[in-house]
Amino acid sequence: MSSQLTPEILSTLERQAIEVPSWAYGNSGTRFKVFTTPGTPRDPFEKIADAAQVHRHTGLAPAVALHIPWDRVDDFGSLRDFAVEQGVELGTVNSNTFQDDDYKFGALTHEDERIRRKAIDHHLECIDVMHLTGSRDLKIWLAEGSNYPGQSDMRARQDRLHESLEAIYARLSDDQRLVLEYKFFEPAFYHTDVPDWGTSYAQVAALGDRAMVCLDTGHHAPGTNIEFIVMQLLRLGKLGSFDFNSRFYADDDLMVGAADPFQLFRILVEVIRGGGLGHPDVTFMLDQCHNVEAKIPGQIRSVLNVQEMTARALLLDGDALAAARAENDVLTANEVFMDAFYTDVRPALAEWREARGLSADPMGAYAQSGYQQRIEADRIGGTQAGWGA
Amino acid sequence: MSSQLTPEILSTLERQAIEVPSWAYGNSGTRFKVFTTPGTPRDPFEKIADAAQVHRHTGLAPAVALHIPWDRVDDFGSLRDFAVEQGVELGTVNSNTFQDDDYKFGALTHEDERIRRKAIDHHLECIDVMHLTGSRDLKIWLAEGSNYPGQSDMRARQDRLHESLEAIYARLSDDQRLVLEYKFFEPAFYHTDVPDWGTSYAQVAALGDRAMVCLDTGHHAPGTNIEFIVMQLLRLGKLGSFDFNSRFYADDDLMVGAADPFQLFRILVEVIRGGGLGHPDVTFMLDQCHNVEAKIPGQIRSVLNVQEMTARALLLDGDALAAARAENDVLTANEVFMDAFYTDVRPALAEWREARGLSADPMGAYAQSGYQQRIEADRIGGTQAGWGA
Amino acid sequence: MSSQLTPEILSTLERQAIEVPSWAYGNSGTRFKVFTTPGTPRDPFEKIADAAQVHRHTGLAPAVALHIPWDRVDDFGSLRDFAVEQGVELGTVNSNTFQDDDYKFGALTHEDERIRRKAIDHHLECIDVMHLTGSRDLKIWLAEGSNYPGQSDMRARQDRLHESLEAIYARLSDDQRLVLEYKFFEPAFYHTDVPDWGTSYAQVAALGDRAMVCLDTGHHAPGTNIEFIVMQLLRLGKLGSFDFNSRFYADDDLMVGAADPFQLFRILVEVIRGGGLGHPDVTFMLDQCHNVEAKIPGQIRSVLNVQEMTARALLLDGDALAAARAENDVLTANEVFMDAFYTDVRPALAEWREARGLSADPMGAYAQSGYQQRIEADRIGGTQAGWGA
Amino acid sequence: MSSQLTPEILSTLERQAIEVPSWAYGNSGTRFKVFTTPGTPRDPFEKIADAAQVHRHTGLAPAVALHIPWDRVDDFGSLRDFAVEQGVELGTVNSNTFQDDDYKFGALTHEDERIRRKAIDHHLECIDVMHLTGSRDLKIWLAEGSNYPGQSDMRARQDRLHESLEAIYARLSDDQRLVLEYKFFEPAFYHTDVPDWGTSYAQVAALGDRAMVCLDTGHHAPGTNIEFIVMQLLRLGKLGSFDFNSRFYADDDLMVGAADPFQLFRILVEVIRGGGLGHPDVTFMLDQCHNVEAKIPGQIRSVLNVQEMTARALLLDGDALAAARAENDVLTANEVFMDAFYTDVRPALAEWREARGLSADPMGAYAQSGYQQRIEADRIGGTQAGWGA
Repeated sequence: MSSQLTPEILSTLERQAIEVPSWAYGNSGTRFKVFTTPGTPRDPFEKIADAAQVHRHTGLAPAVALHIPWDRVDDFGSLRDFAVEQGVELGTVNSNTFQDDDYKFGALTHEDERIRRKAIDHHLECIDVMHLTGSRDLKIWLAEGSNYPGQSDMRARQDRLHESLEAIYARLSDDQRLVLEYKFFEPAFYHTDVPDWGTSYAQVAALGDRAMVCLDTGHHAPGTNIEFIVMQLLRLGKLGSFDFNSRFYADDDLMVGAADPFQLFRILVEVIRGGGLGHPDVTFMLDQCHNVEAKIPGQIRSVLNVQEMTARALLLDGDALAAARAENDVLTANEVFMDAFYTDVRPALAEWREARGLSADPMGAYAQSGYQQRIEADRIGGTQAGWGA
Repeated sequence: MSSQLTPEILSTLERQAIEVPSWAYGNSGTRFKVFTTPGTPRDPFEKIADAAQVHRHTGLAPAVALHIPWDRVDDFGSLRDFAVEQGVELGTVNSNTFQDDDYKFGALTHEDERIRRKAIDHHLECIDVMHLTGSRDLKIWLAEGSNYPGQSDMRARQDRLHESLEAIYARLSDDQRLVLEYKFFEPAFYHTDVPDWGTSYAQVAALGDRAMVCLDTGHHAPGTNIEFIVMQLLRLGKLGSFDFNSRFYADDDLMVGAADPFQLFRILVEVIRGGGLGHPDVTFMLDQCHNVEAKIPGQIRSVLNVQEMTARALLLDGDALAAARAENDVLTANEVFMDAFYTDVRPALAEWREARGLSADPMGAYAQSGYQQRIEADRIGGTQAGWGA
Repeated sequence: MSSQLTPEILSTLERQAIEVPSWAYGNSGTRFKVFTTPGTPRDPFEKIADAAQVHRHTGLAPAVALHIPWDRVDDFGSLRDFAVEQGVELGTVNSNTFQDDDYKFGALTHEDERIRRKAIDHHLECIDVMHLTGSRDLKIWLAEGSNYPGQSDMRARQDRLHESLEAIYARLSDDQRLVLEYKFFEPAFYHTDVPDWGTSYAQVAALGDRAMVCLDTGHHAPGTNIEFIVMQLLRLGKLGSFDFNSRFYADDDLMVGAADPFQLFRILVEVIRGGGLGHPDVTFMLDQCHNVEAKIPGQIRSVLNVQEMTARALLLDGDALAAARAENDVLTANEVFMDAFYTDVRPALAEWREARGLSADPMGAYAQSGYQQRIEADRIGGTQAGWGA
Repeated sequence: MSSQLTPEILSTLERQAIEVPSWAYGNSGTRFKVFTTPGTPRDPFEKIADAAQVHRHTGLAPAVALHIPWDRVDDFGSLRDFAVEQGVELGTVNSNTFQDDDYKFGALTHEDERIRRKAIDHHLECIDVMHLTGSRDLKIWLAEGSNYPGQSDMRARQDRLHESLEAIYARLSDDQRLVLEYKFFEPAFYHTDVPDWGTSYAQVAALGDRAMVCLDTGHHAPGTNIEFIVMQLLRLGKLGSFDFNSRFYADDDLMVGAADPFQLFRILVEVIRGGGLGHPDVTFMLDQCHNVEAKIPGQIRSVLNVQEMTARALLLDGDALAAARAENDVLTANEVFMDAFYTDVRPALAEWREARGLSADPMGAYAQSGYQQRIEADRIGGTQAGWGA
């Protein structure tokens, strides 16, 4: 059996921070239906208030990622102040080039120079917001592509993408970064302009040191060994951030760790192996949607899932593993590996939380806090936040 | 080389009919964005008018499938009359148990008897509509399931599904049928209550002779040999209908034949092999969405794709194939098979169309008809039809 | 937290038995290379001696599945006696219709009546063996299919399969069963004659009550919800046996639970839910290959994996789950579910083993037993057992 | 309709050359069974004689790829002379680091320096062979990886791989190249050291200009858009060669174009778009196995498939496509694209063959040549070539 959480492990966990996405608190759904829920925020301030609940009960989520235009406000300074009051800060800024009618056939890759310029300008606006919010990272998810073979010139689009990204990258200040997310499939069905880590890597490598890859755990083909990609990107110095979530088939956006907890464990083992845990260059974020489950508790559960799995990964007995590997003792190496995974760290983490003045049981504490009842009562009228799709 | 289209083949093609879905003419999209298009119908009458264009130019699409409640009208009799005036008839009625708030956690499978009753009653209403429209088939796509392991009792849901289907089946008249569609994934992410042909088959076999399986070509796991399922369902006497479309990854709902034309060929070969072509029990339907392409021409292209591929499948030289198979001559058998696929039937079909008083080039004829310009000019104001998601 | 293993749970575990396959102790590999290992058995007696080690150290594996012709001996009576001496019994008999040159294009489905007859006769021989070994189950994995579209008439093959199975089924005695395994892919690449549970179900349902489906956990398309199939087959009364193993992509035949432990948990939850645990009709078997890891310890690890995961599944708090489901409280239901999975049952199972006179640590006990050193020293010369591919 | 093959297209086709693999003429199969066939070559000379038949009847296959050690001979000079006599030349040299017992746990990535050295030395021997055979390309397929999570340190292996490749690359002469093949899965099941194009690209980019990526069409995850990768590698100047084949699910190694002809078309369109057709840097090779079909005709069929599909891709009307794309006319662009695919080029190619002194029907000409009967009669005794797995 593994030894349990050592002071060193606890100290490492102490430094763990997970950004939560503002859009997780709004409504989301499938193309068939978006179900609404009472208490859903109507504006960015309410989203941040909800996000702060996650941090309040877990101590794990000190920052909130924004999405422009969904989180556009007149005064980002006051949004920032509000966040600070709530005990959190504003994090990564996410751009949106998939909901304007002009972007039906592309944005940063569009054949029409006018539309590319508009999409670039949108990113410059996002950088302006970053200055106001104090955000370091501009995250670009390139939701562009085509639905039918022949529809587009994929090669020309790739070249135009490079030019557009260059224009955006040039505007960043020295302490800001561009993070390019790849996605295998959806919303385009035939081809996606940044479908895999290789493309994202080739594009950001052509920009410079402050351009990095974002790895969303739900954006791969079936059977892909995601921890291998984590390893490779860390090795190449280009892993900028994670979008955590989980999925059974496509981009399901379920709670991280829900579909394949062992995969999450393997990913975190590689993060630690590659020096990415607690490294300032590797941001941990959630990117999830709570279509049928309660939203704030869904986020609490998710950050706890990441913490618990990180604790398990930290339990991995490196010496025992190295010894087994040196002898090509497959079964012992696997047993050492599984031992860390199967160790139940939840009681130790509960104790540790209490020692830090948090509830042993954040889910229960939130349920009993009355917050949910309050927002359900207060947030009457107005338009619930969502994706506006 | 194959001989080209014989009188016998042409006569078989003469009997081919493909139902088109009313919803193909409304707006559709992804969870990220539904792009609108000028001229989109605002009501079921306008949808039927658009659908009639497809038949007018191809002679292939004499019936329009309805979806309740999207196509609910005060007077189905006048909708039927309108269809007849337009030269088409009303076809399969599709129910909808995925957009009411009550159905968030299930409909025909819901734990709550009240909600199951409501869902059953909706289907009884659909049967009432069928009496008014003269439709034979009630198609049930069961968009139910759960997103998280543990969320639901899959076994109990399966039993409740049987009970609900029995109540619906009991209401059908002797010349009506229930057709149960299966779907691998989406909108539920963890489990779907009718995920595969086996489940649909087991459920309809427990109902009776007038309950059949609907095979949607986009609803399978990656790598599934769909033509094998076609063969098996025909062999078991349970293939009720096709929902044709195509996809690269998930339920993309692209135009049939667009993603993998050779797969469509193989499917049609098995339909013919099993006696399903032109058989009254096997309905050909489209179930597609035109997210980025023009809608009416998208439907015209699609029915032509089915026709062209059917013609190729009919070219298959059965004697040569049987001879090669009898000697296990793999390469010759495959060559005979591919020869039919690679034969260009388009010129012969164009001639044949002209002989029937249709344009050789239905896409061009539609473009020149002025219809599109007319509806774009006329359909100003009102709410464009869509899924209301 | 969950309560730990109750007397009731322990008593259920007491009845758990897992058949091990004789071929797991021989060499296996990929089409590229079969690596050999010292101490590998040279005949069925040595395989059974090795298998008995698994039972000796775990108390979990009282039966050994045979494969004909790989395990053909002159005197099955003496093989049976030898097994009894070693403390195990002979279990399921597996037929082989994929390694004779005559079967290149099919066996039970072959176009040539002579070859079908030969394949049927092989199964009758297997039934004769079953009478000698006292085996109840004849397991048929149908490794037949075709590599190229057009190569075979899939429909005719399906009909011939039915006839062949009927002839075999007719020979079974009243206390014997036929178990038909399905497999998605391999060794045929285009079509497989029994590719999915639906086909296996339709075929065995047409035979009679003593024909059942075998579910091999590695034989599904990517993304398939296997526990759903477990549920459905139990519901239909047709789940005859499991072939446990695990895989990342294809039919990897890795140790059960190695690739996706949470999936194994979900499967076992459905087995318990459907009354299949400890039910005489549902046989638990391993079907694995140890290409790179030590074979006997690989089997010990595997049966322990099944036992540990069964214990976790038994911990599931049914009342709490039902309560959460009744309120559609997705997060609580999922938490109850995950709690059972995350509980570390290993210490309790170690204690329990000791109470039964077994080592707390079967892997260590085997390593220290000297058995491996003994067989490596003794088994010099002869031909190591393998698949003879 | 498209215009048919123009002089310009025919002249482009004139320059098309496809390397055939020596191993295609030997026996191959699955892990379950390798079926033998009469007439199979017993040594590299006989393999080359068979390969020369493919060129003789098609004019398309002037070079034969070798595999060391399968094709090791005492005197490569005489092998080269023999090839020239037969009318072909020796092409790419393929190394083999997956069949020696030392390589069970890796070769170029192995933890043990001695084994890495051995694997490097094997490649230096291959380079020596290249000097004797006049081959330009050394192709490395890295069949290394691990089967279980925890078994290996993936990061350290990646670093060791880089060092090993550097040592090999350093030995190449200025007119030789190293081509690194990636493969998603198999023979390792959990992780593969070069699983995707991104890894192959990162590794070869770190070596230098004469290190390139080899794209095997069967080595991708389900749903991967392969033509996108073709486009990207051509754009990055790193597409060194193709291994053509086709597959329905895994690395089936079926005849190119057999499983998804439209995919082959799309790939060839991108090759042409990116300037890769006829470019000296992009080698076309087959990498196929003929498990159930006749071998020499299987290769003839395959090179014809590539030629036919290239002709279709060359028919693509670039102006019409550009015009449709400029207007985002999805349906017209797709129609232009499909028109090229659906045009039957076989009669025109048959004519063209005759004009060059070849048979219109190479498959028939081979069958009637008597060559097959001759080798079946002559090649009695000896050991048929195969993989020696």
